[in-house]
Amino acid sequence: MTRPLSMWNDTPTKQAILDFVDKVTANDADSFVPPAERIATFDNDGTLWCEQPVVQGVFIAQRLAAMVKTDPTLRDTQPWKAISDGDSSWINSAVTKHYNGDNTDLKALFGAVLKAFGDITVEDFENQATSFYESSLHPVYKQPYQKLGYVPMVELLRYLESNEFTCYIVSGGGREFMRPVTESMYGIPPERVVGSSSVLTFKADDDSANIIHSAAAGIIDDGPGKPVQIWTRIGQRPILAVGNANGDIPMLQYAADQSGPALCMLLDHDDEVREVVYSSGAEEAVKEAGAQGWTIISMKTDWSRVFSFQ
Amino acid sequence: MTRPLSMWNDTPTKQAILDFVDKVTANDADSFVPPAERIATFDNDGTLWCEQPVVQGVFIAQRLAAMVKTDPTLRDTQPWKAISDGDSSWINSAVTKHYNGDNTDLKALFGAVLKAFGDITVEDFENQATSFYESSLHPVYKQPYQKLGYVPMVELLRYLESNEFTCYIVSGGGREFMRPVTESMYGIPPERVVGSSSVLTFKADDDSANIIHSAAAGIIDDGPGKPVQIWTRIGQRPILAVGNANGDIPMLQYAADQSGPALCMLLDHDDEVREVVYSSGAEEAVKEAGAQGWTIISMKTDWSRVFSFQ
Repeated sequence: MTRPLSMWNDTPTKQAILDFVDKVTANDADSFVPPAERIATFDNDGTLWCEQPVVQGVFIAQRLAAMVKTDPTLRDTQPWKAISDGDSSWINSAVTKHYNGDNTDLKALFGAVLKAFGDITVEDFENQATSFYESSLHPVYKQPYQKLGYVPMVELLRYLESNEFTCYIVSGGGREFMRPVTESMYGIPPERVVGSSSVLTFKADDDSANIIHSAAAGIIDDGPGKPVQIWTRIGQRPILAVGNANGDIPMLQYAADQSGPALCMLLDHDDEVREVVYSSGAEEAVKEAGAQGWTIISMKTDWSRVFSFQ
Repeated sequence: MTRPLSMWNDTPTKQAILDFVDKVTANDADSFVPPAERIATFDNDGTLWCEQPVVQGVFIAQRLAAMVKTDPTLRDTQPWKAISDGDSSWINSAVTKHYNGDNTDLKALFGAVLKAFGDITVEDFENQATSFYESSLHPVYKQPYQKLGYVPMVELLRYLESNEFTCYIVSGGGREFMRPVTESMYGIPPERVVGSSSVLTFKADDDSANIIHSAAAGIIDDGPGKPVQIWTRIGQRPILAVGNANGDIPMLQYAADQSGPALCMLLDHDDEVREVVYSSGAEEAVKEAGAQGWTIISMKTDWSRVFSFQ
C-alpha cells in the first residue's frame, strides 16, 4: 500500500485528516458515514490554486484592456482607468475591500465585467477562458495559470476519492471561468464545479438553441451563498470543507453542524519562500476557526511541496 | 446477454432508442460520444411518473387544508377556498392554464404555497414530503405515489446507465419535493435532481447552521428555465432528453442543437386503459416534435407495462 498524502508532512494536520477519514470509513456505527454522504467541498481561489493575483482578475483585466483599445472613452471610468494606467492593484484591492465588507469597487468591477462578457453564449465565454489559460503566464512564477494548483490539495482530492468521497469545488469565482480547467487541474468534472455566474437566458430559433451570458449578476457563490449553492446543487451537507477566507465561513459552519463527524479546515498562507504570506480577507475566518476548533493547514509547515514546478 | 428494454414493445420507438445508443457508443468517429458527455435529462411529471393528479398539487392541497383548520379566515381566499370546498380541480386547472400561458391562478397558488412552506429548514420540508409519501394514496390506483413511476422509463434509465450515460431529472416540480424519493423510485441521487425551488437563505448562530426555505419564488425550472438549469448544474448539453409537455420544448431544443447525435423524445399519454388519455398542455410540444422530427413515445403502443402494480 502506498503511503497516503506523501506531499503532506507528518504534522497534527495530516494526522487530523487521516483520523477523520479512518473514522468515517471504519466499521463503527457511531462515526461511519455511508459513501453517498461523503461530500467534500473546496473553495478554489487561495485554497486549490494561488490567488496572488486573483486569476480571474487577470483574465478580466486583459479583456477590459482590449475594450479600451476599441473604445478609448472608457479610459475615464473605473475599472478601465486602472487597467489603462497599469494600476493592477485596483482589482486586488476591490476584492480585499469586498472581503472586509465594502462592495463599492467590486460593484463597479462587476458592472464592467458584465458589460465585457454580456450577450455571448456560455460556450463562447468558455472559449475565451480557454484562450486565456493557453496564452497567459503568472507574473512571478512565469507558468500558465493552470499550473498554479497546490499539489498537496490535488493529492488530498484523490485520497478522499479513493475513500469514496465525492469532491466539489465551491468557489466565489466564476463557474464558467473555472470549468474549462477543473478536470485537467483537479480531476473535477463540470457538474461538480459550483461558482458565481451572471444571469443566464435561453435563446432559440429554428437553427440553434443557446444559453446566453447576459449582463446582470446572477449567483454570488460567496459567504452565505456558498451553503445555499451547496444545498441547491448537491442536496446534502458536506462532511468536509476547506477554505481560506472570510467568504468561506458559512460553508465551514454548514459542514460543522453535523450529527456525525465533520472536518473543517482553513488554509493559512504563511509560506514566504514558496508562495506569499498574507492574511488580508481571512481575519474573521481565523477567529472563527479558533473559536470552533477548525483545523488550520499551514502551507509552510504542513506541505512538503506547494506547486508541481517547484 | 439479457435483452435490453424488455418492457418496451418491438416498435420503431424502441428501435430508435437502441440505434441511438449503438451510435454514440460504437467505435465510429462520426457518431461516438465519450462517456463523460453522455448526458440524458428527463422531465418528471408526466414523463417519469403519473401527473394525473399532479402529485405535488395533492401534497400542497393537504398542507393548505391543514392551514385552514388552524386559521378558518383563510377559507374566503383562493386557493384555500377551493381546498375547503373539496374543489380539487382548481389546482389542476391552474397548472393547465399555466401550460397555456395564463399564470393568474398559478401565482395565487404559488403565494399560498410559499406561505405554507416559508421559514422552515430544507430538511424539515423534506421530512414533510417524506411523511406525505408514507401516508397518502393515489385516488384511482390506491397506491402510494412513489409507486406511480413508469417502469419502462426506469428500465430506460438503467439501460442508459449501463451504456455509461449519466441521467438527470429536470422537472418543473419542486426539487426538495422530489429528492426524498428519486433515489428509491428512479435510482437518481439528490445531486442529479434539478427542479424548481423557493429562495433559500443561510442562517447560522453559535449552535446551528441551516438552509431556510423562504417565502419567495426562486428557481422556476420550466420552459426556458430548464436548459438554463441544465447548464448551471451540469455544464454540458444533454444528448438525450425526454419530456411530455410544452414546458419541455426548450430542453428538447437545447438537446437537439448538437454537432453530434441527439435523441429528443416526447411521451404521449394515449393509453386509456392503463393510464389516462390527455394532451392538454402538450399541444405546442406535439407540433414542435412534428416539425423537428422528435421521437414520440406512445404509452399505449410502445410500452408492454406502465406501472409495477398492474
